[in-house]
Amino acid sequence: MKVLFTGFEPFGGESTNPSAVAVEQICLLPPPTGVQWQALILPVEFRRSATLMQSCISSWQPDLVLCIGQAGGRPQISLEQVAINLLEARIPDNSGWQPSGEPIIATGPAAYFSTLPLKAIRQQLQHNGIPVNISYTAGTYVCNALMYQLLHHLSAMSSCRGGFIHIPYTPEQAAGKPDAASMSVAVVVQALLEIVRCCQQYSEDIAAVGGTLD
Amino acid sequence: MKVLFTGFEPFGGESTNPSAVAVEQICLLPPPTGVQWQALILPVEFRRSATLMQSCISSWQPDLVLCIGQAGGRPQISLEQVAINLLEARIPDNSGWQPSGEPIIATGPAAYFSTLPLKAIRQQLQHNGIPVNISYTAGTYVCNALMYQLLHHLSAMSSCRGGFIHIPYTPEQAAGKPDAASMSVAVVVQALLEIVRCCQQYSEDIAAVGGTLD
Amino acid sequence: MKVLFTGFEPFGGESTNPSAVAVEQICLLPPPTGVQWQALILPVEFRRSATLMQSCISSWQPDLVLCIGQAGGRPQISLEQVAINLLEARIPDNSGWQPSGEPIIATGPAAYFSTLPLKAIRQQLQHNGIPVNISYTAGTYVCNALMYQLLHHLSAMSSCRGGFIHIPYTPEQAAGKPDAASMSVAVVVQALLEIVRCCQQYSEDIAAVGGTLD
Amino acid sequence: MKVLFTGFEPFGGESTNPSAVAVEQICLLPPPTGVQWQALILPVEFRRSATLMQSCISSWQPDLVLCIGQAGGRPQISLEQVAINLLEARIPDNSGWQPSGEPIIATGPAAYFSTLPLKAIRQQLQHNGIPVNISYTAGTYVCNALMYQLLHHLSAMSSCRGGFIHIPYTPEQAAGKPDAASMSVAVVVQALLEIVRCCQQYSEDIAAVGGTLD
Repeated sequence: MKVLFTGFEPFGGESTNPSAVAVEQICLLPPPTGVQWQALILPVEFRRSATLMQSCISSWQPDLVLCIGQAGGRPQISLEQVAINLLEARIPDNSGWQPSGEPIIATGPAAYFSTLPLKAIRQQLQHNGIPVNISYTAGTYVCNALMYQLLHHLSAMSSCRGGFIHIPYTPEQAAGKPDAASMSVAVVVQALLEIVRCCQQYSEDIAAVGGTLD
Repeated sequence: MKVLFTGFEPFGGESTNPSAVAVEQICLLPPPTGVQWQALILPVEFRRSATLMQSCISSWQPDLVLCIGQAGGRPQISLEQVAINLLEARIPDNSGWQPSGEPIIATGPAAYFSTLPLKAIRQQLQHNGIPVNISYTAGTYVCNALMYQLLHHLSAMSSCRGGFIHIPYTPEQAAGKPDAASMSVAVVVQALLEIVRCCQQYSEDIAAVGGTLD
Repeated sequence: MKVLFTGFEPFGGESTNPSAVAVEQICLLPPPTGVQWQALILPVEFRRSATLMQSCISSWQPDLVLCIGQAGGRPQISLEQVAINLLEARIPDNSGWQPSGEPIIATGPAAYFSTLPLKAIRQQLQHNGIPVNISYTAGTYVCNALMYQLLHHLSAMSSCRGGFIHIPYTPEQAAGKPDAASMSVAVVVQALLEIVRCCQQYSEDIAAVGGTLD
Repeated sequence: MKVLFTGFEPFGGESTNPSAVAVEQICLLPPPTGVQWQALILPVEFRRSATLMQSCISSWQPDLVLCIGQAGGRPQISLEQVAINLLEARIPDNSGWQPSGEPIIATGPAAYFSTLPLKAIRQQLQHNGIPVNISYTAGTYVCNALMYQLLHHLSAMSSCRGGFIHIPYTPEQAAGKPDAASMSVAVVVQALLEIVRCCQQYSEDIAAVGGTLD
């Protein structure tokens, strides 16, 4: 199983992005038996992030694509269930583009669902003592747009699964902010390892109660 | 302009539902010039709520459908941008059904976007001193399912707009819970009135910066 | 029973202060039988707020002093249990003074407890459907300092009770802030009325479970 | 410098207490030059926790006492500024005692302030990338009571400093709870080490802006 991790460059005034740190760290570890992995660091740009990722997918032909991004303030690993076809940038992306109220792909569907076994992953992380939830919004910024474009791209392919995972600030990032939750990169790396193992083990998701009332 | 409001019966152990109270109260007021309105109280059931609403739409032929629901814990009026094709019930609905991981409509698209002028409404409510945001998840329970089924139904019609609006607990509900935000019904009723006025005034939404990073 | 309410002028960039609005509104209502009330609006200044309040107490000789202040972001009426002998100003007060790490009264005790029947008030507000809690920190700004100086002043008097009550933003204030909780002034005024009634009825507090683990 | 750490046994349905884990782990490390340290694990009981600690202080004669406790839900290291003379137990302690509205020490002052250099510690932790704040309430449960009794005990001694530090859930604890913040024990242990170093370096606290408005 060939696994492509993507992480992002810093944005929003930060000097680091935990997603880049985590995917680079995990790729320094020996992968589980039967797994090859590589990490790709993407710019926080609506268009170029997807183009670079798609090039890598085309050339390397991964079986699994795990896009990782920072969700500043969230206290747990967030498994994104859905990406929506909407560009709504509260701040400009790193190329200076600030789209508002536009579709990501004009002819695309309103949304795509993650093709990862999210409930199996949630169960596995909880069993390993890692805070995790399934999230029903990936926002409307570059993370959501990358997830949407990934799933749009994969929808035309037969056998590659993919999804997006939001991770908290590192303790170092949170140290300068009032009341911000954080997670050590070591915990994030362990989470990513468990996610890869889960995707090896589960071709179909498990059944489990979940959801949010609102 | 004929306006159909829907509210919900109580659920989750509550004895009231502010959405029912608010839509019944506004329909006791004289509507703005050119507007007729009526309120329909729906059961908190995935299927029957939509069936009852669709019957009312078919018979009364409204121009605007505003579905209202309680979002316990949110501090502001939440204008829902999108409904997703997913049933994921953390608790059973009031008929005892607890679907998990199923689509709402097996042949339906992954999501529908609200057809209300959300940014115009947000601006109008803020100008009137009413806390408001645009939300990118309506959850995965009956509220999301009703919104999805509404927009699916309206997608086959030419001229009726619709969407979903989440409202906070009332102060009475919040009084028994630790640290729960609330909003007086009078403020909610004023918000609904402004939303109707906005929909009269704006056939197209305005441009405005917004969105969430994650 | 003579009741002195105090409220504050706006601070921190706000154009209103809900505490001033609420205490002025309640004093326009007819007081309960046996009650006289008046409102005093104080500057958001560590020293002058207390001096003005103490002058008013000396001249009018109230039996009950209820100091009210804005706690932006809190979702409920907060009955303050304790004021601490510490000046720690995150921003300058409205006179430009920004003390840090100093005692309020150099020879004073480390803290004073409210002399209001807080648990009786909490029960009464909850019975009336008003969100309320007992809080164990009034912060370290002018609100805490006024409460401390009030209780220091009253400690030398035999029969006047007093305390501090934090109230949320108004909806109008919260409308311009992301995710801020609010409470309508009408609800706050009703809360103040119930607090006065409670203080008439209870010379001693009731017994009730409460507290916070941390 | 002899440093006594105290941690607590589990309570409130938890099977571990991160404060016990952290203080035991740090005492397995070689202390900084000039420092001796030991850890004492205390029962979550209002009276016996203090008695055991005081015995250890009397026999070992530490120069610094750092009491550590779990603050479930807080995202950062919390340096407690003040302990109040109040027992208000939301749940019984581990001996089954649930006091309410009583003083800890009937003849004691209303509060004691920490004698640790809190602003220096805050600065040091932030410089080391560890999320931290100064807190103005240690709650009303066993943590506050231990801190109060520690400072009461130390107030009669000339040269021993002491205070209380709240720490977050571990990731393992947070994994079973919705939306709970956490901190890895390794980060907590690093924080405790920096706190000891700070107390070695600073006999007086530094000046720095801080505080909370409410």
